[in-house]
Amino acid sequence: MKLYNWQFAPNCRRVRMFILEKGLDLPGISEVIGDGMKLQPSFIDMWPSAMVPVLELDDGTRFSEALAIVKYFEELHPEPNLLGATPLERAFVTMWERPGYDEGIVGTAEVVRNAMEVFHDRALPGFPNEAVVQIPALINRGKQRVMRYLRKIEGQLGKNRFMAGDRFTFADITNLCAVDFALFAGMSIPQECPSVTRWHKEVSARPSAAASV
Amino acid sequence: MKLYNWQFAPNCRRVRMFILEKGLDLPGISEVIGDGMKLQPSFIDMWPSAMVPVLELDDGTRFSEALAIVKYFEELHPEPNLLGATPLERAFVTMWERPGYDEGIVGTAEVVRNAMEVFHDRALPGFPNEAVVQIPALINRGKQRVMRYLRKIEGQLGKNRFMAGDRFTFADITNLCAVDFALFAGMSIPQECPSVTRWHKEVSARPSAAASV
Repeated sequence: MKLYNWQFAPNCRRVRMFILEKGLDLPGISEVIGDGMKLQPSFIDMWPSAMVPVLELDDGTRFSEALAIVKYFEELHPEPNLLGATPLERAFVTMWERPGYDEGIVGTAEVVRNAMEVFHDRALPGFPNEAVVQIPALINRGKQRVMRYLRKIEGQLGKNRFMAGDRFTFADITNLCAVDFALFAGMSIPQECPSVTRWHKEVSARPSAAASV
Repeated sequence: MKLYNWQFAPNCRRVRMFILEKGLDLPGISEVIGDGMKLQPSFIDMWPSAMVPVLELDDGTRFSEALAIVKYFEELHPEPNLLGATPLERAFVTMWERPGYDEGIVGTAEVVRNAMEVFHDRALPGFPNEAVVQIPALINRGKQRVMRYLRKIEGQLGKNRFMAGDRFTFADITNLCAVDFALFAGMSIPQECPSVTRWHKEVSARPSAAASV
């Protein structure tokens, strides 16, 4: 089994944290495909959509998307449960996992990909394409979007210890990766979000948070 | 049980089609919260993030996110299976469902929400907010994004009858909603994507494709 990983991608970190939380020992699984902030041409040749992470099974079958990969691991290794133990808990894990990606990670990616010269041909994730131009106005709007996202999860974390209720789940993993990506991009958790700060400190202390490729 | 629905939202259509494909008879489940292209203020009061669809259970529990809602229905009513019957099929359904949302629906939403005056305070989905300004440059870039998305699914549909393989799944539902949303926004399937056209014709003929609120 191989996991194609780009060290800077929050979507790869979601999967690496998930594997560590599962307690899985998968030595040598990680194949780093980043060349600094760029992707290695050999990876793009192998996987033309150029999106990571990609899981490769021992028979050569490959599939991408963090959500597909963590579900696959959860089915092979059900314990500890990270995607929800009942239909209703699974609904809440999914519901609170989504804004971490759709608003936190995507909003921060708008800031980063429209600001940095190295992304001049990758303003959107995926295959390099000069036609997909950087839009400077998205830098500020991406920041607004992340602030709105932080206020949204503040509402949830003001009432719950973790994102989907009273225990740690994949919803916490995706949202931690989102918040840390925003911090990496120079944003900070505003004072009006004390519950996000409290939760961020708690989940950052888990050994899995130090996941690296 | 109630499903809060906005008639124009492709994310609501994903859930409505899923329910019809399941053969579920849920009369009166749909509560329409759109007032034309706007959202009813009473809905925003009830659900401040102002994102649809929202499912309300008989005990008053509510949760949002199309993905969470369809998973919940799949667990309550396993047949016919729409999210994958084995771990590997579930991985492929998830993998191919994602670009329908992340690239097709989101890309088209960039076109629509940055072009239409009615979205002047909703350039991003969710609560109306004048600070989240429309960015005209996103209209063209959104179209580029959708064309790139169509070329991506062409690659898959050139080798498979349906999005995730040889049978109809939720991956087809989300991608049909994405392609129809792009058509609604004035885009068209380019000639270089004959497999998308072939697949679009086949899935559009299913009774569930006529799902309305």
